[in-house]
Amino acid sequence: MKKPFFSTKSPSEVFELFPHFPLVDKEKIPLEEAKGRVLAEDITANENLPGFERATMDGYALKAEDTFGASEASPIWLNIIGEVKMGKVTDLVVKRGEAVKIATGAMLPQGANAVIMVEYTHMVDENTIEVFKPLAPLENVIRADEDFAKGELVLSSGHRLRPQDIGVLAALGKAHVQVFKQPSVAIISTGDEIIPITEKPQPGQVRDVNSYTLYALVREGGGIPWLMGIVKDDLNDLKKVCKYALDKSDVVLISGGSSIGMRDFTLEVINSFPESQILFHGVAISPGKPTILAKIGKKAVWGLPGQVTSAIIVFWVFIKKFIQWIGGEREAHLKTFNTMHARMRVNVPSVQGREDYLRVKLVEENGQLWAEPIWGKSGLINTLVKANGLVKIDLNTEGLDKEEIVEVILI
Amino acid sequence: MKKPFFSTKSPSEVFELFPHFPLVDKEKIPLEEAKGRVLAEDITANENLPGFERATMDGYALKAEDTFGASEASPIWLNIIGEVKMGKVTDLVVKRGEAVKIATGAMLPQGANAVIMVEYTHMVDENTIEVFKPLAPLENVIRADEDFAKGELVLSSGHRLRPQDIGVLAALGKAHVQVFKQPSVAIISTGDEIIPITEKPQPGQVRDVNSYTLYALVREGGGIPWLMGIVKDDLNDLKKVCKYALDKSDVVLISGGSSIGMRDFTLEVINSFPESQILFHGVAISPGKPTILAKIGKKAVWGLPGQVTSAIIVFWVFIKKFIQWIGGEREAHLKTFNTMHARMRVNVPSVQGREDYLRVKLVEENGQLWAEPIWGKSGLINTLVKANGLVKIDLNTEGLDKEEIVEVILI
Repeated sequence: MKKPFFSTKSPSEVFELFPHFPLVDKEKIPLEEAKGRVLAEDITANENLPGFERATMDGYALKAEDTFGASEASPIWLNIIGEVKMGKVTDLVVKRGEAVKIATGAMLPQGANAVIMVEYTHMVDENTIEVFKPLAPLENVIRADEDFAKGELVLSSGHRLRPQDIGVLAALGKAHVQVFKQPSVAIISTGDEIIPITEKPQPGQVRDVNSYTLYALVREGGGIPWLMGIVKDDLNDLKKVCKYALDKSDVVLISGGSSIGMRDFTLEVINSFPESQILFHGVAISPGKPTILAKIGKKAVWGLPGQVTSAIIVFWVFIKKFIQWIGGEREAHLKTFNTMHARMRVNVPSVQGREDYLRVKLVEENGQLWAEPIWGKSGLINTLVKANGLVKIDLNTEGLDKEEIVEVILI
Repeated sequence: MKKPFFSTKSPSEVFELFPHFPLVDKEKIPLEEAKGRVLAEDITANENLPGFERATMDGYALKAEDTFGASEASPIWLNIIGEVKMGKVTDLVVKRGEAVKIATGAMLPQGANAVIMVEYTHMVDENTIEVFKPLAPLENVIRADEDFAKGELVLSSGHRLRPQDIGVLAALGKAHVQVFKQPSVAIISTGDEIIPITEKPQPGQVRDVNSYTLYALVREGGGIPWLMGIVKDDLNDLKKVCKYALDKSDVVLISGGSSIGMRDFTLEVINSFPESQILFHGVAISPGKPTILAKIGKKAVWGLPGQVTSAIIVFWVFIKKFIQWIGGEREAHLKTFNTMHARMRVNVPSVQGREDYLRVKLVEENGQLWAEPIWGKSGLINTLVKANGLVKIDLNTEGLDKEEIVEVILI
């Protein structure tokens, strides 16, 4: 057995370890399946968008020069020579003194360089309009390359695709798109006290809360979860299941049995693999201190606290970002957490030298949002069920003051 | 043809119309599929959780009374009578002067009422420990009903399930859970200028951006999208497709062809159905004014602007919430938008009497987040691709001031 490298890390040191792990592979998928997936190619406009000059208003296409000086008092008259059909190129050519009827989205006829809104015109007879308002060239017109110009970078590799991004890919005719695969994440629950959720617990036993919670968390994080089931406190069983999980997935989560023996097993199992390295054992956050990250070959094994609340918070703070990182995402910093601002309802002391994650309930009173702490032991899940927010108390802070404005991570 | 009821609504009046529509049906699904779904039953604890007294620390179970007065200077001695096996009930009974070895999560033996952490003990010999610290009864113990008590309401119908909720359902042995079905949403794209995304547009034609964008948006909103394809400017075709969509789905979205004729068609098609009612035509937001909501039988038909940026904003502001509403969700108010605070980079004027949705890019500079407007016509999609936020300018505001702190909706 190799000598393990033990050390407790600060949260920022944990993030610095992510680049030790390779990204997942790429795959090509149909555009309609691509929302929420991470782009694995740069997208450059292969043509101008929209590709032709379009009207942005219903009205008349004309030469802007004809309208210079037009006003309510001295309207100018134009001869209507026809109408543009939607989706078609017209043969009509607009000359001085002429106009062509046009609808929003239609292609400008040759010779026209602006569109006057119907509201600023008056029908004199079937073939003649009055125009009350001067137009600048290109007014109410989208230029042929105004949305995207040919050759322009539209979206970069590493970007998680939003609905509007799907829209621009559709506009460019990308019916298939190259994305990163979703990281596959094996979930192992350990402990002699853990039983399947379909069974009735005897005194001393609890149902397998962690597997199902982690399954949901992995999906939330953009990974594909894979339940490996419950492993009792047996070193060889854990080795076997862990080897199988490593072969078949990108990340392995071992949610620690709470027994003392079990915790040693996790370390022993990790060390039993060739090319294994424990990157840290212990991180300065609360709850969640007894977290482990190991590298076995190119794969990551996370050892999670058995206490469900601790496991969830470790997942949100580190593992979700880890899955996004190896899943190719490169803009995670901004949108990782959804936050709101609120005022603390009470004073909350904290220990310096670790990040505390306080569970809170957001309550609105006369338009003011208050954060009320939900107290409870980290072995209880009710604190997180009753909470709808987390407040991070920084490493170097002594706590939070009553009425202080804090950033609340929505959960 | 019935006389249509036309009127422009304010955004808040639009939300008041939602209860005119029935909720979707319910279904029972496996727990692992339930994340993000809306609960359609109240969940009451059918047993105490965890169901037995558990240690929250590694150490020794004992009678707290034995430790009263203990200190570093005058430790008390206890006789170790054995160890609790994880997941098992022990036969051991703790009497005065005795202690039992216990690990986090294990069941307290009879007679014990507290757990001393290993750190506050010292091994005297194999069967004896010194305890340095007094304990209160129940210290380092989770009571049998401390997580949830039998009969307690755990989660309410109408709640969208988060990972921690999945956890508590697992703890209660709910392997299946009753949820609302995901609303099915048919998407119809109309207009003579629209072509399938796999085709090469001729001048005057554009690819079907709206169908794909709406498909992604419906998924983001928790609905099941269904692409009905492109309908050319033909009244009978649109009637046929709309009837089919109404028969098979809960909501129909008609993304307006931009031609004048097409817009009339949408209203005419709606009015051609028996039991149809136009609830509004026009809403005081920008972009997005020419939005339609109609009720046909019990189903909703939304007419969306053809301009893609307008359609996306109308979706986020109204239709996403509508899908969540008929999908049974009842806590949508708080988490509907994910927001951050930033300072405006420039002054932005606005028209009173309508809600303006300004596209912005969030830029961080020395720890300060700035919102920079992304200007552009609503027929362009690049504004929303380059933006990562929206700033709402209220109905009664004249605009935003430079350096003003604004709430930015993350997109």
